[in-house]
Amino acid sequence: MTTGVRRRMGVDERRQQLIGVALDLFSRRSPDEVSIDEIAAAAGISRPLVYHYFPGKLSLYEAALKRAAEDLSARFAEPHEGPLGARLLRVMRRYFDFVDEHGPGFSALMRGGPAVPAGESRPMSHVSATNALIDSVRQAAYEQILAHLGVTDPPARLELVIRSWISLAESTALIWLDGRRIPRAELEIQLVHDFAALTAVSAAFDDGMRRLLRPMLQDEPADGPFSDLATRLLALAAEPEPEPRPEREPEREPEPGPMA
Amino acid sequence: MTTGVRRRMGVDERRQQLIGVALDLFSRRSPDEVSIDEIAAAAGISRPLVYHYFPGKLSLYEAALKRAAEDLSARFAEPHEGPLGARLLRVMRRYFDFVDEHGPGFSALMRGGPAVPAGESRPMSHVSATNALIDSVRQAAYEQILAHLGVTDPPARLELVIRSWISLAESTALIWLDGRRIPRAELEIQLVHDFAALTAVSAAFDDGMRRLLRPMLQDEPADGPFSDLATRLLALAAEPEPEPRPEREPEREPEPGPMA
Repeated sequence: MTTGVRRRMGVDERRQQLIGVALDLFSRRSPDEVSIDEIAAAAGISRPLVYHYFPGKLSLYEAALKRAAEDLSARFAEPHEGPLGARLLRVMRRYFDFVDEHGPGFSALMRGGPAVPAGESRPMSHVSATNALIDSVRQAAYEQILAHLGVTDPPARLELVIRSWISLAESTALIWLDGRRIPRAELEIQLVHDFAALTAVSAAFDDGMRRLLRPMLQDEPADGPFSDLATRLLALAAEPEPEPRPEREPEREPEPGPMA
Repeated sequence: MTTGVRRRMGVDERRQQLIGVALDLFSRRSPDEVSIDEIAAAAGISRPLVYHYFPGKLSLYEAALKRAAEDLSARFAEPHEGPLGARLLRVMRRYFDFVDEHGPGFSALMRGGPAVPAGESRPMSHVSATNALIDSVRQAAYEQILAHLGVTDPPARLELVIRSWISLAESTALIWLDGRRIPRAELEIQLVHDFAALTAVSAAFDDGMRRLLRPMLQDEPADGPFSDLATRLLALAAEPEPEPRPEREPEREPEPGPMA
């Protein structure tokens, strides 16, 4: 995003440019490693001019975070058409796109890491502002899922399943960023399956959840992610033991699969 | 823990007493609402004497947090005897005991909330120390689970399942604390089922995970939590639709259950 050449911009245009440049730098490395000098250089302006628009690195970081939060929340929007599993998978792809683009900055933020250089203090207002932004993204995700499920007044158990799955998606993304040892496409579909599995666990023990969820899943196609998971789990449960265990009594029946 | 009467204590005994009193207060209310005066009163000593042992509220908070982290980590220890599902359920009960005892303090901490009064600044060293303590508890939980599974060199997919389930347990506990709208006993068993479900999802799509997990689950009894879940999920999948949907073609077959 370096221009190399100074050019006159309007006040708002310059602010927006600085936020974009800062977000780009804060995303590529841990934010505490990014200096105002670097931001100035990348924007093609002088350090004092940066301070003309933002009182310090912290306020620029907060502005960049706000833009990132709006960007991420917008990616949760998905047309209410077609099977639920396929919709959720498309959202997961866009979520991992975001995580991929903002890797180091996303990790630093979600691990509660430093937004200002080591040794400095962080005012409590910054901690609150940061937490409020993270919560706003989680809330946007929660409300999108509820809307897709067609539920306006969710019971406590449904709220728990959705909100705890959102935190599962966050931790899965963070673990993926730490070494990228599993292909991201696999994790995108795994999170869709995890949603189905956590929902099914809740429905298996609660009639209210069962009544709520059954109609939602009736339109899932046989080749969709939910059906695929169910087929594989049934196969897993039906699978015989791969080899007898010598320490066992021979007359003992083979046990059911991993979920049994 | 108020004694009301001053009594002479040794230096270490007094430090330990103050940490205990502070932990009790920091647990019952959000830590930013607890004052040094209150801690002094509860310990039955003067405010200056508190400062003789701890330079300020922050250092007392860190000491209390360290004790809580050690306490929680110790609760993960469980004899390597009997079925895995029952072991995990006992650990979940002790985990919810801890969450119950330290509710407001646990919420404030895990939500990245204030440990010092609003308006004050938090030195970065405190943020790092707090994050390191939280990570040490997560790591203890992770290592305990690996040990129970008998795995010393976990593949990336197993590490992901365990670590992301730990974050699911944290968010489930936090959501429970926010209103306690679901009985905690239900959530303790639900988290055991969630572990089985997330593991099964991973095993359904990965041969390595399947080979690793099958022997672990062979010794689960028919009346254990894993078997109970499997039976209920199979029943759920086999259940016919509760009522026909009028907008559908009448010749259409009933669809499988929520997981299908």
